[in-house]
Amino acid sequence: MTRKTIIGVIGPGEQATEHDLQNAYQLGYLIAQQGWLLLTGGRNVGVMETANQGAKVAQGLTIGILPSNDTSGVSAAVDIAIVTDMGNARNNINVLSSDVVIACGMGAGTASEIALAIKSDKLVILLNNDINSQDFFQKLAPQNVYIAASVSDAIALTKNILFNS
Amino acid sequence: MTRKTIIGVIGPGEQATEHDLQNAYQLGYLIAQQGWLLLTGGRNVGVMETANQGAKVAQGLTIGILPSNDTSGVSAAVDIAIVTDMGNARNNINVLSSDVVIACGMGAGTASEIALAIKSDKLVILLNNDINSQDFFQKLAPQNVYIAASVSDAIALTKNILFNS
Amino acid sequence: MTRKTIIGVIGPGEQATEHDLQNAYQLGYLIAQQGWLLLTGGRNVGVMETANQGAKVAQGLTIGILPSNDTSGVSAAVDIAIVTDMGNARNNINVLSSDVVIACGMGAGTASEIALAIKSDKLVILLNNDINSQDFFQKLAPQNVYIAASVSDAIALTKNILFNS
Amino acid sequence: MTRKTIIGVIGPGEQATEHDLQNAYQLGYLIAQQGWLLLTGGRNVGVMETANQGAKVAQGLTIGILPSNDTSGVSAAVDIAIVTDMGNARNNINVLSSDVVIACGMGAGTASEIALAIKSDKLVILLNNDINSQDFFQKLAPQNVYIAASVSDAIALTKNILFNS
Repeated sequence: MTRKTIIGVIGPGEQATEHDLQNAYQLGYLIAQQGWLLLTGGRNVGVMETANQGAKVAQGLTIGILPSNDTSGVSAAVDIAIVTDMGNARNNINVLSSDVVIACGMGAGTASEIALAIKSDKLVILLNNDINSQDFFQKLAPQNVYIAASVSDAIALTKNILFNS
Repeated sequence: MTRKTIIGVIGPGEQATEHDLQNAYQLGYLIAQQGWLLLTGGRNVGVMETANQGAKVAQGLTIGILPSNDTSGVSAAVDIAIVTDMGNARNNINVLSSDVVIACGMGAGTASEIALAIKSDKLVILLNNDINSQDFFQKLAPQNVYIAASVSDAIALTKNILFNS
Repeated sequence: MTRKTIIGVIGPGEQATEHDLQNAYQLGYLIAQQGWLLLTGGRNVGVMETANQGAKVAQGLTIGILPSNDTSGVSAAVDIAIVTDMGNARNNINVLSSDVVIACGMGAGTASEIALAIKSDKLVILLNNDINSQDFFQKLAPQNVYIAASVSDAIALTKNILFNS
Repeated sequence: MTRKTIIGVIGPGEQATEHDLQNAYQLGYLIAQQGWLLLTGGRNVGVMETANQGAKVAQGLTIGILPSNDTSGVSAAVDIAIVTDMGNARNNINVLSSDVVIACGMGAGTASEIALAIKSDKLVILLNNDINSQDFFQKLAPQNVYIAASVSDAIALTKNILFNS
């Protein structure tokens, strides 16, 4: 078996906060350092862009699952572009293809991915300071949702999940 | 132009509460009475099943957007079965095809549909008593999310949205 | 059980021949006359457009499965617009949702739909004069592919298939 | 720009001939030797399985775009499993994500992928001895379809296409 571990980092595009972007960069870097592949929505904005940048600095391999019908708009830090032409329905592919999903920040697209991940019984780590979101998703699926206090906490949780699965 | 108004009713399947089911039945009935088409996820359980039943009692026309690759599991009260073979990614089709989306109850699938609807700038009416959900989605997209106090309130809100769009 | 019979008519958009368009119009008309629902790819061009026009003249009900993320570009003769935002991948939904598929003319999109129909073991009727296409698809799946000599022949074959299934 | 060249190899699963399997193995091997990534439908049968095996012998990187909702049934020679849960609609992702598509053998799924590739104006190389298929697809899209006489010819054609695009 040659199959590689894939960690999905999801989060806002144009609406990402400065804090989200910093977290995403560090997440990408640390995921690559662990030898895991980074999977994102692939676009050249927000959490997708900076997570991929962080991963490439650490010589990681990056997968971008694009909503569009070609590679225009792909992050320059994506190694492997998967072109879906499915719009937001590609969010389901993002979470199904990830061994663990880390949500970095919040938005409508991110919320849809967390919910789709839970629906398919995947494990999701929330890395953001929004108490409302944490409450909502933890109440929705206590067994599937973890809260990370920091980037390094998110990586530690990911390791735990991978080793116990 | 011959195109018909489609109202999407989304909500839990197996996990629907008794209250959700009663609301769904009445929603289906009143939607049909208005001459609108009812669109659901099409399965023979929960909110999908009872909304379709209500619509058929009022001689409505019902569309079911199925996640499966055939019509096994379709509600017997669905007139038009659309077979997607896309699993939960069909949730995006549910909301994109609806002129207005009414969420009746809450669950992971329902949450994904509300979030996907918001992401595509559709209007969503929440009909449930869960304050957490209301807070989460209203904060996420104040302009896209309405709270209905009752089934008749949901229908009144739907009329308002349709007449102003 | 309230579910209606759906007949899919597939064929070229912009590249349809005059003959394809005439056939499509008559197919739509006769499908509606039988009380069957007409399903097409929903766009306002080619076989999709004229099949829907024919069906509406005969007071039929028409379903359009759109590739786009909204209803711009929908045929004015579509009653029920299903918005997929899946591009050409919606071709799979077209064939999975149809009880019988009639291919009226040929093109790349049409060929993909016939092949996807065969792959899911659906029955396809070919209505066109292109011997190459007939040979190719009949050799690919002798049990799934029928050749119609005329529009009325296609309708007769459809009846036979429905009554024996 | 870090993005890698992806070559898609498509072909029958359970119905692949012995000759198809040999061709697929060599294609996988030579694609990997060129430093290109191999993309297939990812399942552990037929052309998908042996193409991936060939690529791994040459230390290549392999991507599998799975139709299912988990990784059961994935080829053991797939490095990166993309889980779509879209059934045959994932065929569209296969061709959209490939810089060049090589069809190795023929079947309903393969025919759908060639047609979908043409529809999106991708270039497709046919590697099989079936004159019917060659005629059909070349007539359908003379500018998009190339015929390869051998595996090495298919690789040479691929190089030409990549250098001229």
